[in-house]
Amino acid sequence: MTLVLTTYDWVPEFPRGFVRDIRVRWLLEELGRPYQVETVPVREKSPDHIANQPFAQVPFIRDGDLTLFESGAILLHLAEGTDLMPEDLRPQVQQWLIAALNSVEPFIMAWAINKFFDKDEAGAARREPLLHQRLAQLQAALGNRDWLTGDSFTVADLLMADILRIPAQNGFLDDLHGLAAYTERATARPGFRKALADQMAHWRAADERQATA
Amino acid sequence: MTLVLTTYDWVPEFPRGFVRDIRVRWLLEELGRPYQVETVPVREKSPDHIANQPFAQVPFIRDGDLTLFESGAILLHLAEGTDLMPEDLRPQVQQWLIAALNSVEPFIMAWAINKFFDKDEAGAARREPLLHQRLAQLQAALGNRDWLTGDSFTVADLLMADILRIPAQNGFLDDLHGLAAYTERATARPGFRKALADQMAHWRAADERQATA
Repeated sequence: MTLVLTTYDWVPEFPRGFVRDIRVRWLLEELGRPYQVETVPVREKSPDHIANQPFAQVPFIRDGDLTLFESGAILLHLAEGTDLMPEDLRPQVQQWLIAALNSVEPFIMAWAINKFFDKDEAGAARREPLLHQRLAQLQAALGNRDWLTGDSFTVADLLMADILRIPAQNGFLDDLHGLAAYTERATARPGFRKALADQMAHWRAADERQATA
Repeated sequence: MTLVLTTYDWVPEFPRGFVRDIRVRWLLEELGRPYQVETVPVREKSPDHIANQPFAQVPFIRDGDLTLFESGAILLHLAEGTDLMPEDLRPQVQQWLIAALNSVEPFIMAWAINKFFDKDEAGAARREPLLHQRLAQLQAALGNRDWLTGDSFTVADLLMADILRIPAQNGFLDDLHGLAAYTERATARPGFRKALADQMAHWRAADERQATA
């Protein structure tokens, strides 16, 4: 049975390319695993949506009998038993995947919420030193390695690099060349390029459906 | 070889009982696994500390040859192969553990940072509706079950309940009786009581060392 990935039926320009289904698309491309896309309405959250994703967000997946939400957990589940989650590196891969979600992303989101949602420049400015410190610490931890756990790209790199796209695009990596190169190295992979193109095509198709509706 | 859990050598009154080593202590009590505690200076972050925890935080552990940071990842690693991470529920346990870290805790921390660190009451008030919504969604998802994945307490409940202590103590669960009862049910467990007592004793011993230094 083909894996089903559910995302929104439409989003405005602003988050396009960053809706979190991209992480799952990227991993599925890396794994060469076919999938189909279904949608839930972004404007009216249905009981069916909430039954599958209690916070009324996306993505969630259906993989055989299993329904799963929370992109980090979907990545862990899909990477299980593949080269992107080597069994002998499981603790370290989990460590960096969770570091991405709990020690890096919240600092980015706190800044981005102030900056883009609240339009609170003073608040955003207050978040910047801590965010910059986190990113510098991450670069120091990466050191001269290509990937967080060594020579091989894992699902932890996939998630970390996806998360780093927002600071990269907002100048936070301009003086962190190692981390900038890491983010570029990851997002240059064909799997990410395909995932990004497919997500953007999904939103274009949504615009066309709206235009003809 | 006894597992070594590293935490700070001292912290002020405010975070006592909430320093994240408590999650690891709690799990180790649930598993009946002995451990010893080592410390790193809270005031001056040493190169050795940063080599073990790149964000200069605590806890980290040494388990045989493995050194691991990020409390969520330490929990996943230690729960592996135990009743607190049933193999047939792995995807769901991972899902709720990551939901705690990425979909619940960041909203609590965003509020707490405004409230307690920035002393920004207006900022904190702006975060409250979203935090309250998250908690209400979580309660709805829990429904009438005792634990997030069913009848059995798992490592996901341990982490979620630990995270919910801050909103519980700040009135956010006063009208969310199901979630309040869930948090109480979890933190009434002997493993949590022991972990909390041990962490508090650790800070008292630190005060005494300071007093006689």
